[in-house]
Parts: sequence; structure tokens; C-alpha cells
Amino acid sequence: MIAVAERINGMFKDVRRAIQKKDPGPIVDLAQKQTEQGAGYLDINVGTAAADQLSTMRWLIETVQGACKTPIAIDSQKLPVIQAGLEVCDGRPVMINSVSGDPEKLDVYMPLAVQHNAALVTLTMNVDGVPQNIDTRVEIAMTIVSKAMEHGLDMPKVFIDPIVLPVTVDQKQPIYICEVIKQIKTVLCDPAPSTIVGLSNISQGTSQRPLINRTGLVMLQAYGLDAAIIDVLDTEIMDAAISADVLMNRIIYSDSYLKSARM
Amino acid sequence: MIAVAERINGMFKDVRRAIQKKDPGPIVDLAQKQTEQGAGYLDINVGTAAADQLSTMRWLIETVQGACKTPIAIDSQKLPVIQAGLEVCDGRPVMINSVSGDPEKLDVYMPLAVQHNAALVTLTMNVDGVPQNIDTRVEIAMTIVSKAMEHGLDMPKVFIDPIVLPVTVDQKQPIYICEVIKQIKTVLCDPAPSTIVGLSNISQGTSQRPLINRTGLVMLQAYGLDAAIIDVLDTEIMDAAISADVLMNRIIYSDSYLKSARM
Repeated sequence: MIAVAERINGMFKDVRRAIQKKDPGPIVDLAQKQTEQGAGYLDINVGTAAADQLSTMRWLIETVQGACKTPIAIDSQKLPVIQAGLEVCDGRPVMINSVSGDPEKLDVYMPLAVQHNAALVTLTMNVDGVPQNIDTRVEIAMTIVSKAMEHGLDMPKVFIDPIVLPVTVDQKQPIYICEVIKQIKTVLCDPAPSTIVGLSNISQGTSQRPLINRTGLVMLQAYGLDAAIIDVLDTEIMDAAISADVLMNRIIYSDSYLKSARM
Repeated sequence: MIAVAERINGMFKDVRRAIQKKDPGPIVDLAQKQTEQGAGYLDINVGTAAADQLSTMRWLIETVQGACKTPIAIDSQKLPVIQAGLEVCDGRPVMINSVSGDPEKLDVYMPLAVQHNAALVTLTMNVDGVPQNIDTRVEIAMTIVSKAMEHGLDMPKVFIDPIVLPVTVDQKQPIYICEVIKQIKTVLCDPAPSTIVGLSNISQGTSQRPLINRTGLVMLQAYGLDAAIIDVLDTEIMDAAISADVLMNRIIYSDSYLKSARM
């Protein structure tokens, strides 16, 4: 499973402070530590830490690119911020995170992804909001797949996010998400698109966030999940994710598999 | 998920010593501790700790019954040992663990289970050995289900064990087991039989046994596993199993769910 490392985000105090002081130290440190812990992508999100999100995104990406070779996920809901990020990318693999499943938006983001040879995170939500059932999520996933075909974006580069909701809001949601992932991976098209979740929402409002996060992650992996935005510095969730990859026959077992998988 | 607690087994040194000295202390202690940690059944297995397995099984069961009210799983491959155990059971729920899927054996064990109102663990293996694929396991499960119907054993009392093999032997096995469980729970009959695994085999020969055990357990739970024979004194595997029950909507979330589920 691809671990998209979530910590370079302006909502965290240390990152916020670094952005505001233009101090590369903490950013470099997080980039390197997350890389060592097995990050497949480093998610970069300015958040509300700066008034000028465009220049801040550029600075963060350039800082990270100077610190490691890890692929980057440019995380913003604003197209200009995504574009600013893409401009300074140095040719390493890159992911655009994220766009909703509205056809008009996909018509903008998919050509952008193709142009930059980028992966694209697409959410199973549209103008009607976030669906809470299986079928509407799969319908939006179908729209995403057909738009990807139309625009010529390679299917494995399409990362569909079925949008995890908190278990405290509706306990049926995790099972629904498992089923949506299974359908996306087996029914929609061949080769299948990739699947991704922003995991931590599942444990929102619970008393056992890390435990529920890693338990939920393993369940979703059992249904074919390809990627998740997680805290890779949490050793326990990474150990669980890597072990699930062994049990899903995605990586070869060796006695040192926990270490090997992080390299 | 029903946790069948595995520690009262003559293969463990402390239990072996207690059996040989006829010292009830360690048995009482294990019965009570495993009960406190959320055991749904206490598995009792004489192992090779005593020459007279019949009287030893009786003594172990009577000792456990004096120590707690937890249901008991009588664990032996020998019919006379199972029968000796059933004779001293005091009316609490009881499980017979286990019988293979050979029709002639099922014709003996199923009436015994019906007579004692017992649950029965049935293995998806027969005279041809342990199948390593999905289809043969499901075929044997079908034999088990039809025999249960014939003998009038309530379907939820039939615990089908698809036989977990070590991930080091064949990394495709965990996915196969997930699929077998899904089919048993959704295809064979309504109401469905129950499913159970002897979990620890999955991690045999690995460097990370507790981690692989709990990760594998959560994956199987995601496909509908009802019960597992595990070490309930391992807090981490119990926390994972209980959290998976919340995420599968099998128990209601509350902030104290880890504690509530153990009561």
C-alpha cells in the first residue's frame, strides 16, 4: 500500500510556525523522517498558515525537493495553488490531491494531470454532496473512470477516494467503504483505477483514534485499498499496513519485511 | 467476534505442570484472567500432559467450572475425550472442538452436538487432506452444512473452520481464507453457519507473530469471521478484534467500548 504522509500540513503547529518564519528546518526534517518511515508520497498542504498560498506552496515543494527524492502530493482545494505547485515540481512523480467527481471539474483537472504526468486523487462526491451509500459512490466512480478514459489519464494514476466518514456518525460506513473499494477494483474497468482514503476521518470523535485508524486501514486493505493518507511517523499504523500488504500477497515476506518495506 | 481463549492447553508449560501436579491454582487463575479479558469460550485441551486424557479433561473442566461462568470449548481430536468432557459439563454453553468434514465423522459428532446442545467446530478438511484452494474448502463447507441440516443442528451452532495456513508457506492463503469466509457467510444457506479460525497458524515461522496474528484477524473479521481461537491475554489482539467489531457494526461504539466489550 502506498502511504501518503500527512504531516507537512499547515494545520500542524510546527509546520505553521515554519511557514510563517520561512524556516526550512522543520520542513526538511519532516520530509526526511517521513521518507525514512516509508512514505510513498509526501503530502504538502499549506492550510491556513499563509495569506499567499501560491508562493507558500512553491516554497514548501522546493524545500521538500531539496531534502529528499520522495514523490510529492500537492494538496489543495484551490486550482491555482495546485498549478503553482506543479510549476515548480522537478520531474519526480507527483500526485494532485484532490478534485471532486463533478464532470466539469474533472474536465479541468484530468488534462492538467495528463499534462504533468501526475496521479490524480478524485473524490466520490459531486454538487449533490457526499454520498453516504454504496451505489452513489460507485456511480460517481464510474463518472470519474469514463472521464479518465476520455482525457487519456492512465487508469492506475486515477486514485478514487470513496470518502471515509466517522464511525461515530454512522457505524455502517466502514463496511460500505470496503464494498465500494471492492467494486472499484473489480467491476469498473481493466486495468482498474487505484483507490485511496483520507483515513483519519474514520476515528473522528472517538476515544481510540490510532487504534481505530490502523484497524480500519487493515480492513480496507483487505478489500484492495491501494493508498492512504496517514501519519507514517506512527510506527504502529505503518507496521499494520505493511503486515496487511504481506497477508494480501502484495509484498514478499522476509524476516526483515517491516524494515525492507520502508526502504 | 467470539474470542475462544487458547491458554488452558497442556502444551503450555504452566498448564502442563498444573495437570501433572493436579494443582488447580494455575487453571483457576487462567480461567478467571481469560474471562476478565473478554473470552467468549475457554478452550480446554489436555494435550500430551497426561497419560489419562479422559480423567484429566474431566478434572480440567470441573476446575474451570468452579472458577467462572464462561462457556467451555472441549478441545481434542479424540472422541472419547470429548465425550468425557461433555459428561461433566454443568449446563453452560459448550463447544466441541473439533471434527473434520468427513461425512462419516460428521454423522457421529453432529448427533452428539445436538444431544448436548453444543456448538461444533468443523474443519474444511477430509480424508484427502487439507485443501489449499478456495473451491474445495467451500465444497467441504457445503457437506458440513448439509449434514447439519440432516441432523438438525442449528446453523449458527455450526462453526466452520477453513483452516488457516502459515503465510510463510503460501502468501495467497490469507486472501483465500477471506474469500471462503465470505462465501460461507453469504452463499451456503440462510441463516448462515458461523465461521471460526485457529488463528496463530497464520504467523507460524514469522518474525512478527503477534503483529501478523492481529493484522490477519482484522482482515478475516472484515469478511465476516465470527470467532477465533486466540490468546485473549494479548491486549493488543483483543483491542484490534474489538475495534474491528465496532467498524463492522457488530458492537455499538462508546468511548469505553474496549472495556464494555470485555464484560
